[in-house]
Formats: sequence, C-alpha cells, structure tokens
Amino acid sequence: MKLSELSAETGVAPATIKYYLRERLLPQGERLSATRADYAAAHVERLRLVRALVDGARLSLDEVRRVVDALDHPPQSRHELLGIAQAAIDGPAPDVAVSDATWATLSTLGWDGCAPQSVTHLQAALDTAARAGVAVTPARLRVYAEAMADVAVADLDGFADDPRRQEPAGAVHYVAVGTVVTDPVLVALRRLAQEHESRRRYAHGPDEGRRP
Amino acid sequence: MKLSELSAETGVAPATIKYYLRERLLPQGERLSATRADYAAAHVERLRLVRALVDGARLSLDEVRRVVDALDHPPQSRHELLGIAQAAIDGPAPDVAVSDATWATLSTLGWDGCAPQSVTHLQAALDTAARAGVAVTPARLRVYAEAMADVAVADLDGFADDPRRQEPAGAVHYVAVGTVVTDPVLVALRRLAQEHESRRRYAHGPDEGRRP
Repeated sequence: MKLSELSAETGVAPATIKYYLRERLLPQGERLSATRADYAAAHVERLRLVRALVDGARLSLDEVRRVVDALDHPPQSRHELLGIAQAAIDGPAPDVAVSDATWATLSTLGWDGCAPQSVTHLQAALDTAARAGVAVTPARLRVYAEAMADVAVADLDGFADDPRRQEPAGAVHYVAVGTVVTDPVLVALRRLAQEHESRRRYAHGPDEGRRP
Repeated sequence: MKLSELSAETGVAPATIKYYLRERLLPQGERLSATRADYAAAHVERLRLVRALVDGARLSLDEVRRVVDALDHPPQSRHELLGIAQAAIDGPAPDVAVSDATWATLSTLGWDGCAPQSVTHLQAALDTAARAGVAVTPARLRVYAEAMADVAVADLDGFADDPRRQEPAGAVHYVAVGTVVTDPVLVALRRLAQEHESRRRYAHGPDEGRRP
C-alpha cells in the first residue's frame, strides 16, 4: 500500500509517519521509485504499536525505539528475554544508591535476587516521591509489593498462555508491550479503588456517581 | 531570595523557572523593582513539586497546572477533595463508551458506584491496550483490580494518618501528589515482581543478578 493508504488505515497523519520513518521507529517500505515506497501489513501493526506506546503508555520516542529494537532483535532464553524487554522499557539504570531500607524490604519479600539495575529504578521512584514530600514507608512499600506480586503472577500466567510467546518476537511483544500498555490500566484501577474506598469511609450523602 | 538563589537552592535552571512563572505553574514572587522579585520558601517547595510531577510522574505541563490549581483551590469535604484531586491528575474524561464487560467486572467488585467519568479512564486504558494487541481478559482485570484494592486501602490509611490532611491544601497535596508520584513506585515494583516470578519459573542457571 502507499503511504497515503497506510495513513488512512491507521489514522496517523502522513507527516507523522514520515517522521517515524526518519526516526527509525518504523522500517522503511519497499522502494518502488525515488519518491514511492510500498508498505505492508507489518507496517500497519508496527505503527499501531508505536501509537499505543506514545499515546497509551506515554513513552518518549527514545523509549519507543528501545522497545522496537528489542522486538527486532529478540534474545534466546525466556528469562533473558523478559530481562531485555524490561530493560528496553525502563531504559538505563539511574545513577542512585539503593538504600539499606529498600534492600531490607526486598529481602523480606525474597526479592533480593533481583538485578541491582532493576532495583535502582525502584529506588529512583522512591527518591522522587520523597523529594515531592511523599515518603513511602517500609510498611506501605511492602503492601504495594505484595499487590504487585499478585499482578506479576497474572502477567506471567498470561505469558505462558499466549500463543505468540512461541516465537521470540511474539514473546518480546507480549512482555514489553503487554507490560507497558497495561501500566495505565493498573493506574486507572488504583484511582477507582481509591474512589470506592473513599466513598466507603467518608461519603454519607446519596451516591451521586452511580451508573444511570 | 533572588531568582538566582531559588535556582541554586532547587537545581532548576533560571530559564526554566522563568518559563514556569510565565506558564503559571509557579506563583510570581513579591516584586521589588521592574526587574527584581523576591521568592520565599513556598516557591522552593512548589518548584520541587513541579519538578517531581514532570520528571517523576511524567505529567504534561497542562496536567501539572491542573494539580497546582487544585492545590490553590482546595474543596471542602474529604470525599469531594479526593474526587477533585483525582480529576486534576487524570484530566477530562475521555470520550469512550464503557463496555458491558467492564461494567460487569466492576459490578462483581462492588465498584459500579464509581463515577462514570472515572470508569471511562479505565476503559480508555483497556482500549489502548487492545489496540496494541494486548487484550486484558475479565479474569486478569479482576486480579489487577483486587491488587489495586489493597493498594488503595494502604493509600487511604496513609491519608488518614498524614498530619497534613488536616488543612485542605495539605490533603490535596497528599492525594494528588501522593498518588501521582507513587504510580512509578508501583510500576517499578511490578517489574521487580515479574523478574522474581520469571526467575522462579524459568531460570535454571546460577543466579547472576544477586546482590554482591
């Protein structure tokens, strides 16, 4: 298909598609002449993915490029694959020192075998929250971690069930994309859960928000 | 303090501070002359908050402005306050139709009393994931929701314990900022939990990632 058709199919403006081509987020089409190229179904799928990562998961273009590179160069073992997919999403380890309190909490969870570079992402998030005046106590960190352990079991169950995991590219797609695009689902659920819990604790008037 | 001192105190470049002043993310200092203004400790705190929201929580400047406006105009009741703080973070409700399947899952959780505009944020996140080829099944959505229910209880417990909740501005700060800046903590914990679960299921070699 022509670039104009790729645009019509995906709803992405031609100028944006050309930008993604220049930025290597989308592979070049098959060149037909100096000014024309042919695009295939794989371009439609990749373009939808890039838009989902940008709009839905709010990744920067550099982060999208890392996910796309991991998709194009998948590793061998399944555990290694998960690690590369995560690194592709999360970017380089931030240059922060992991506190003893953080290691202690991870240790009580049995998570102190996790790669130090993964732990620095957690520490950076904790440090940012603390700088904003929101210190996450070890007790609360533990509640959060246990909730995320349940989420991860469901994530990995889904990974084991998904037919695409059989081919490495499908597996990276599942892990990298599946995790990133469902982060906003978790965030939205957290808001709903807070709203429900807030109503349960504090609301006394008629329930104005109920579904009509 | 002078603008240069505010910059030194917070590590934010003077040009960035001037930009935030123009964009109303930071209140004007007390004007001393045509070219000089005086900044106080409140400016330091606000500037740190804006940086945490931009860098840590990755909000757009429009979203930061909504949080800042909610901080400057806090509501009365605690439940209403939570709602306004959430709306400040989440922005306007997306224009999507909530599916029957989503309402059915919320109903089994007892969450169908949540405001429809909150539910549309969840639906938009589910739709984005589906467009990226990651359909979240009702069973998995339920696991995610139950995990977030535990998170929300800890969030509201923290809210009840925090001394700043006594004054409305402190309460909005706690809810809006506390939720937004801890979203990345949850995301980082999800990655660690996946790494732990992946190692438990799939890794068979020596544990190379263990803490030195």
